[in-house]
This record gives sequence, structure tokens and C-alpha cells, in this order.
Amino acid sequence: MHGLDAAFSALSDPTRRAILARLAQGEATVTELTEPFEMTQPAISQHLKVLEDAGLIVSRIDGTRRPRRLAKPAIDEIEQWLAMLRKALEQNYNRLDRVLAEMQHPKKGKSR
Amino acid sequence: MHGLDAAFSALSDPTRRAILARLAQGEATVTELTEPFEMTQPAISQHLKVLEDAGLIVSRIDGTRRPRRLAKPAIDEIEQWLAMLRKALEQNYNRLDRVLAEMQHPKKGKSR
Repeated sequence: MHGLDAAFSALSDPTRRAILARLAQGEATVTELTEPFEMTQPAISQHLKVLEDAGLIVSRIDGTRRPRRLAKPAIDEIEQWLAMLRKALEQNYNRLDRVLAEMQHPKKGKSR
Repeated sequence: MHGLDAAFSALSDPTRRAILARLAQGEATVTELTEPFEMTQPAISQHLKVLEDAGLIVSRIDGTRRPRRLAKPAIDEIEQWLAMLRKALEQNYNRLDRVLAEMQHPKKGKSR
């Protein structure tokens, strides 16, 4: 499965997006995430597993703690895909602008 | 369902992302999309339905044609969500940088 398939699929859940928004502010453990989200620890763990499998978060070991943080490369990949889409969209708009301008002010000597 | 739920879910499929990339270059009908994607027309129509239900594309009626184009507001919404994530991430990095700088060069008169 393409990395973007799993990443976009993981992002389709509002709780997972909220967890990512929280982790963007700094790393947190399952315990630290459980309280603000008012969910059970297994439910949070399941969401973290989906996010980790999709490459959106990574964990590190700190004694008995296992804090999670956002994985910047995955965020970068999503942004790059959107930037490609945006660029094509803008080139298309620019092309339409030129066509419209040409229709309003046809160049001399050009047969229409 | 939140708009972002449906949008990200629709984006999790590689064919649908490719259709969006094609439509970013300009509007196209089902027939025009069927050939480059080497898929059946019903298969393309099904993908277009998912994209339209998610608000990512819109269609217009042009005689017997029904060209689809990208829906800019939905793309804007996704980009805004990612920009929020990116901003939080960078503020977090800046904060870490300050903490590290402070550890290396503690301010005078501040007990540590």
C-alpha cells in the first residue's frame, strides 16, 4: 500500500486528527493522551497504532514511558502531494486567464 | 460526517488521487477520464461519485456533457488543517530550540 493511502485513511478520523494536533505541540504518552480525549486507554492505543502504521507518528522509549511524536516526513509527503495539486490548479487558472484575455483583446494579425 | 473525514477518506485511494491530479489540469468528463485510466466507465463513475460526495469535485451541465472539475474550497480546507498542524509543529521546534539554547547558555542571575 502506498504511504499516502495509509496516511490519508488514518486522517479520515476526527479523533486521530485531534491526536495529531495534540502531538504537533509536543510528544505525549498514551496516559497523557487518555485524559484530554476522555477515551479509554485501549481506544487511544488503537488510534495510535493506526497512526503509527501509517507512518504519521513515531514512538521512542524513555524508561517505562513510550512517548509518541509526529513523524515529519509523512506530513511532508502529504504537503508535497497537495502542493502538486495546487500548482496544477493554478497553472490551469492562469491558462484560463490567458484564454479569456485573448478573447477580450485578440492579438493583431492572429486569425480567430 | 465532518467534511475532512470524507475528504481524507476519498483521498486514500490512488486512482482517486490520480483523477484529482488530472482534474487539477482542467475539467474532464467521465468519457475523457475513462481512456487514460484504463478503467471501465462505471468504475470511473463510482470514483467520481465518492469524490463528489466528499466535496472534492463539482460537475456542471454542458449540453449532453457533464464535465467535472476540482472543488477549490475542499482543497483549501485540507490545506488549512495541514497548515495548522505545521504551525504547531514549528512552534514546538522553536520552543525546543529555546530550551536547548537556554541549557547551553543559561541567563545570568537565573537559578537552575
